[in-house]
Amino acid sequence: MADSSPTLPAAIRWNGDSTGHLELLDQTLLPTNTSHRQCRDVASVIEAIKMLRVRGAPAIGIAGGYGMVLATTEARQQGLAAAAAVAHIRKQAELLATARPTAVNLQWAVDRLLRLLDAAGEAPDLAKLADSLLAEARKIHDEDRELCAAIGRHGATIVPDGDILTHCNTGSLATGGAGTALGVIVSCWEAGRRFRVFADETRPLLQGSRLTAWELIQREIPVTVLVDSAAAHLLKTGTIGCCIVGADRITANGDTANKIGTYGLAVAARAHGVPFFVAAPSSTFDLSLATGAAIPIEERAAAEVLTPLGVQAAPAGAEAFNPAFDVTPASLITAIITERGIIQEISPQKVAAVLGS
Amino acid sequence: MADSSPTLPAAIRWNGDSTGHLELLDQTLLPTNTSHRQCRDVASVIEAIKMLRVRGAPAIGIAGGYGMVLATTEARQQGLAAAAAVAHIRKQAELLATARPTAVNLQWAVDRLLRLLDAAGEAPDLAKLADSLLAEARKIHDEDRELCAAIGRHGATIVPDGDILTHCNTGSLATGGAGTALGVIVSCWEAGRRFRVFADETRPLLQGSRLTAWELIQREIPVTVLVDSAAAHLLKTGTIGCCIVGADRITANGDTANKIGTYGLAVAARAHGVPFFVAAPSSTFDLSLATGAAIPIEERAAAEVLTPLGVQAAPAGAEAFNPAFDVTPASLITAIITERGIIQEISPQKVAAVLGS
Repeated sequence: MADSSPTLPAAIRWNGDSTGHLELLDQTLLPTNTSHRQCRDVASVIEAIKMLRVRGAPAIGIAGGYGMVLATTEARQQGLAAAAAVAHIRKQAELLATARPTAVNLQWAVDRLLRLLDAAGEAPDLAKLADSLLAEARKIHDEDRELCAAIGRHGATIVPDGDILTHCNTGSLATGGAGTALGVIVSCWEAGRRFRVFADETRPLLQGSRLTAWELIQREIPVTVLVDSAAAHLLKTGTIGCCIVGADRITANGDTANKIGTYGLAVAARAHGVPFFVAAPSSTFDLSLATGAAIPIEERAAAEVLTPLGVQAAPAGAEAFNPAFDVTPASLITAIITERGIIQEISPQKVAAVLGS
Repeated sequence: MADSSPTLPAAIRWNGDSTGHLELLDQTLLPTNTSHRQCRDVASVIEAIKMLRVRGAPAIGIAGGYGMVLATTEARQQGLAAAAAVAHIRKQAELLATARPTAVNLQWAVDRLLRLLDAAGEAPDLAKLADSLLAEARKIHDEDRELCAAIGRHGATIVPDGDILTHCNTGSLATGGAGTALGVIVSCWEAGRRFRVFADETRPLLQGSRLTAWELIQREIPVTVLVDSAAAHLLKTGTIGCCIVGADRITANGDTANKIGTYGLAVAARAHGVPFFVAAPSSTFDLSLATGAAIPIEERAAAEVLTPLGVQAAPAGAEAFNPAFDVTPASLITAIITERGIIQEISPQKVAAVLGS
């Protein structure tokens, strides 16, 4: 299995039965410190999502699912009557689903658990409800592992020879399995192909150098880190066979929101005729939106730009522009690799055809 | 005068007569610490250039000129006979000129002082030689102030309305005057035009946030810092009227080496139909090279990428790709703004016509 590297600690794990708690590998401390954070209430899960202790569209979906179990625990601990308990869980679901606005997987996962709440009626047995929510959250987690494996298998059939350039982190830390884009890379490597991965460092939060390089080193896959702005020069002068990235939300026409910098990378890849792949599970698609123009783009704190790694880099008085994501139009994407197959010559029809299969 | 801001400390100043010393504002300490470093020998000037305590193509040319005076001081202090003194100065000249490989201004300035050494014969009076070298070094410094003013005047005629996006630092810290690209921006501002400057932070060494934002804040010009990879998204969604950058070496056909990231920015600007300007004095042109493919690109230490601001960001075992510059083809450049005029529809003939004027 691509996600079976024994040296990679679990990014997300549930400890115990439905009265247990969530443990999240605190990704803000990587690569120098590997420690899990205990989340025993919804507020701590939301804090972890907002602070990017857990990040990556599939991973925050998984964390959101487990967060719903904790919402039920809160209702039980507060001794709420059935109607109040349901109201509390719904309120917490809303807070969880909107902890970050761009990735659609979080809303998708919370909605999935809300359907169980709906099915449980107006006066559910909270212990039974908690059990069923935990089972569903675990199912989302397990399914994501399978989705990653399927994405990896499909991706390996289309990735050309040559070195691979990626952006941000899309691996075990971002998913329930080996990853989306990084899952494809791992899949190619485990099939015996040899190449070097070039990882954009991915400012402002350095997910490329801190997380992707760390995962690849654990897997003994050669990795070279570059500043994001060196990617165009690398595409011009280097040995890159393709770029492959993940996604936070994909609209009905294939437009893709992903980590800031993805769009510029896609423009540069096109200028050099280098294939540009997006790898994502079907849960990342938001077919309710026609195009990427409708995707909300999260703007994050100025300090991420002005105070990198806690060190003041800009003078007092400087402002910051800090969008966390950008949108790459489908026209710049060679193919979208999903667990259901590969979408090429991307159009709303092609998207619907593959997702519906 | 555009370079007369009373709040900006001198980046480079000579202290005393020809037995004096060079003082360099240590730019690695900005924006939090403003202190000058005393350079009393050539080795300390070379160290300052290599470590980017002084940086920017025109500025390192100016520093190299003063370094030649220090080479003469060394010969005098060591009590060398005339022939040995000349040999020592030539040896130091070579070390100075090659302290950094990409910017051509350093070689250009050292060559200019070497012509005085040549003219002084085989047994020069070292005191007189030192006086003449200092006069020439001061002349290069003073001339650069005028060049910046002329570039600013020309540039202001071509820069369109709208906000301005720039990369790296090309201001007072990088030149003997108000700057090249930043000189144009200051010139527009002082003419009463109003806009916001968007400064790419410019990883790995953050000259945009540390230096450009600092200069603009001193001048009370509004500045917003962004991570380099957000530039394409800004070009797509923002209010940018043009991009303007400096240059480290421009070849006979107009191809331009400049700080890493410039090329990707030019590709993105073209994709959005945003004018892309290069501002540089004629000393930045290297007409001995036909195209940018011949420009040597400096590769710098991996730690600049892997250990930003001294903090470990990547795991042990990760490699780094760290070119300090890239080459933007003339085809992506709307115009090159020089002190002698503006080169548009860039070709070898147009370059020769403006530079020869």
